[in-house]
Amino acid sequence: MFIPLFTLCGISSLCSSTFYFYLYTFVFYLDTMSSKPSIPKGTRDFSTEEMLKREYIFESIKQIFRLYGYQPIETPAIENLPTLLGKYGEEGDKLLFRILNSGDFLSSLTDDDLAKREYSKLSSRICEKGLRYDLTVPFARYVVQHRDEIVFPFKRYQIQPVWRADRPQKGRYREFFQCDVDVIGSDSLLNEYELIRIIDDIFKKFRISTVIKINNRKILAGIADYIGESGRIIDITIAIDKIDKIGIGNVKSELSSKGLSDEAISSLQPFLQLSGDTSDKLASLSKLLFESEAGMKGITELQALFAYIESSPLTCDVELDLTLARGLNYYTGAIIEVKSKDVSIGSICGGGRYDNLTGVFGMEGVSGVGISFGADRIYDVLNQLDLFNDLKGSSTEVLIVNFGENETKYALKILDQLRGMEVKSELFPDAAKLKKQLSYADSKKIPYIIIAGEEEISKNTITIKIMSSGEQKSMPLDKLSSFVNEEIKRS
Amino acid sequence: MFIPLFTLCGISSLCSSTFYFYLYTFVFYLDTMSSKPSIPKGTRDFSTEEMLKREYIFESIKQIFRLYGYQPIETPAIENLPTLLGKYGEEGDKLLFRILNSGDFLSSLTDDDLAKREYSKLSSRICEKGLRYDLTVPFARYVVQHRDEIVFPFKRYQIQPVWRADRPQKGRYREFFQCDVDVIGSDSLLNEYELIRIIDDIFKKFRISTVIKINNRKILAGIADYIGESGRIIDITIAIDKIDKIGIGNVKSELSSKGLSDEAISSLQPFLQLSGDTSDKLASLSKLLFESEAGMKGITELQALFAYIESSPLTCDVELDLTLARGLNYYTGAIIEVKSKDVSIGSICGGGRYDNLTGVFGMEGVSGVGISFGADRIYDVLNQLDLFNDLKGSSTEVLIVNFGENETKYALKILDQLRGMEVKSELFPDAAKLKKQLSYADSKKIPYIIIAGEEEISKNTITIKIMSSGEQKSMPLDKLSSFVNEEIKRS
Repeated sequence: MFIPLFTLCGISSLCSSTFYFYLYTFVFYLDTMSSKPSIPKGTRDFSTEEMLKREYIFESIKQIFRLYGYQPIETPAIENLPTLLGKYGEEGDKLLFRILNSGDFLSSLTDDDLAKREYSKLSSRICEKGLRYDLTVPFARYVVQHRDEIVFPFKRYQIQPVWRADRPQKGRYREFFQCDVDVIGSDSLLNEYELIRIIDDIFKKFRISTVIKINNRKILAGIADYIGESGRIIDITIAIDKIDKIGIGNVKSELSSKGLSDEAISSLQPFLQLSGDTSDKLASLSKLLFESEAGMKGITELQALFAYIESSPLTCDVELDLTLARGLNYYTGAIIEVKSKDVSIGSICGGGRYDNLTGVFGMEGVSGVGISFGADRIYDVLNQLDLFNDLKGSSTEVLIVNFGENETKYALKILDQLRGMEVKSELFPDAAKLKKQLSYADSKKIPYIIIAGEEEISKNTITIKIMSSGEQKSMPLDKLSSFVNEEIKRS
Repeated sequence: MFIPLFTLCGISSLCSSTFYFYLYTFVFYLDTMSSKPSIPKGTRDFSTEEMLKREYIFESIKQIFRLYGYQPIETPAIENLPTLLGKYGEEGDKLLFRILNSGDFLSSLTDDDLAKREYSKLSSRICEKGLRYDLTVPFARYVVQHRDEIVFPFKRYQIQPVWRADRPQKGRYREFFQCDVDVIGSDSLLNEYELIRIIDDIFKKFRISTVIKINNRKILAGIADYIGESGRIIDITIAIDKIDKIGIGNVKSELSSKGLSDEAISSLQPFLQLSGDTSDKLASLSKLLFESEAGMKGITELQALFAYIESSPLTCDVELDLTLARGLNYYTGAIIEVKSKDVSIGSICGGGRYDNLTGVFGMEGVSGVGISFGADRIYDVLNQLDLFNDLKGSSTEVLIVNFGENETKYALKILDQLRGMEVKSELFPDAAKLKKQLSYADSKKIPYIIIAGEEEISKNTITIKIMSSGEQKSMPLDKLSSFVNEEIKRS
């Protein structure tokens, strides 16, 4: 309303910098006046509707983790910085949220220390603690710290938020949940197979069609050996990973620009042209890699894993994908990634085997394998495909209309009866206008309304309004329990 | 092993400062060698066993919140500091965990700013965000920020961790969970009544005997009016609160030391000597406070609340307690506190009515009432009274022994059948020695072991070992499902 005034009152008469100063001040003023409190960028509030959907996701995942013998642990949100630093690369260190020491955090610093303004060094001296960045490093820390109490193989799951000072963007948050499931202290490929089954069970439950892509780090090592570039495994895989997007020609130029010889690049050719089903591909690979010990080990592992998979009642598609490079710096065996077939949103689950997760904390030689479910992306996929329709009954099922003090006693009796039968129910707390009470029920999507006014009370009856059909039923109060059993519990 | 060497090799020949330098370095070295990673003081890891107990607490509480029509929300762990500062008193501000700004956090500071070393001022300039300190302020912020989407009365619950830089001690943590349930936007006393019912249902479910103590801020205001010290309500109540501990005489001297006149103190006498049951006490109070508008309002409110309570099937004891002063700086009506009768541990639940929770964020006149359950204390009470015996079936129910590759296919078939029947089950991943596998089952408290070796496979049978009795049963594989239904599901 005010802004046009500026436009009318002769802007040209104001020197432009003064004008912008006033405009800025004015807009700032407006902003303060109307300002609602807000939350930090990259964080989210979850409304009751969102929470019910999120709980459905977490509960479904948990239930299946437990069915497979995995059990929960939790670790604190706050870890000592030395636990976190150096575990996520240089970039990761920058993305850690650090917690300022309490009290006089400057006390250990000299004036000189301050004057130098070396913020990165200073941050480690004024902060001893940081927020959890993922669940993997805290899990490794947990295993080492509690190794004397843990019985191995240790099958644990962990569902907790993590924090990263990343630049927020669509689908990327500074606070988000991870759902990790890992078994540590067992080399058996049965663990990989069981994780594939867990993935299948979870997405079957969600009715999301998926494809599970599987690779093995040892085969990638074998390929690098084969082309005589054993040290370049990461460059090679990252380039191969782009074939679908940029084509073979561009992949080759990328590899060349990274310093791979023409000879090495041309000897890659057979790996880019594998065809047939998984067993055909594995057979071709063993012909190529027979001289690489790592490569052959990887092939044997995949053959064993696919043998389990083929004789199981899996509903997902599973395919070998040599271009799968995720987490290449720590995975040592299987690499797993899951994509939705119907929604293009990146991977919704992923993981692999690591042979030395706990080594960094001084406990060597413990092999593990695990996967992590992306709850936020699964939420988006379910929303986009409109698959959140199992949530009936998770919010209030019956509202009793409040007609005032005289009717309250009767209403409370009904309420006790409903709750005694485990029916989520409430009495509107105020004797507000009927319209207001009905619109409350409507917005909370409450499917049944009970009306028990003077007339009902005098005849010891109730009137039930079924919101989906608009139908109203009158019945003696003592028929309520059969209505609950026959109608409410069944719908 | 090394330390004695120092002792033997002639310490006196070393100049003492050099010696201490070496000793320090050596001890530091030893420390690094043997050091397990650790977590910040006041924080906790939760093991699988602790998690199952905690989840039982949270799930039971949630289920009852929902039965009463309350629904969940969640807010971020990180809030903007202006949202938190000034809400918890000066002491609270000091106990907030602040998060260091990312990147060059010094950039907005001059050399002068730094040289002054005013750590408290500086902390607000290098930190924009802090960790949630409780669930009440974020809830108020949530309500104001989302007021256009919320339908009032808004019945929400929230179960999340909070962080306080308090000095850790037994039972006091720097990271702990709160379970809050509030209704906002309704003045009706039915809300207070329903919260009392929730408390009763929850502790009945936990089998903890409790007493619910109820007071009303308006009565306390009436008493302060009555003795002519309207401004001193907090001092008065804090002193009265100590009667049981220090006796009436000492309470009077404390009030006198706070500057209350002898006249005011002696006119307190009748309030310290109320006797009879709740309705007797309320009757005496109305005789004393008939001139105080606030006091009479408080009495009417309590009479109405106790009328609801008396006609309800409550199992807890409920009593009026005029000395209940908790949260006196923000409660405006009912004040509620719950104690365990069998374990002396302070209050395990508490809350009250507040008339202006959201005022501080610019939204006036919204009344609410809520309570908060202390999950950590409830955990301790349940542990101490050995009441965690509902947890059967929450961890793995069946372990299948792994005899090696040849037997695995048969084992996987059994596993699929068990999980298909929702039996939490696992196949030991490695063909380890039987003793190791049985001790794994034992430590995970798995009640049934299935043995399916060469002999069982040849006869298409299984052997089930029931750990509680040591009994072994052999049966055809196709009898497994009846064993599940008749034995596993029933126990």
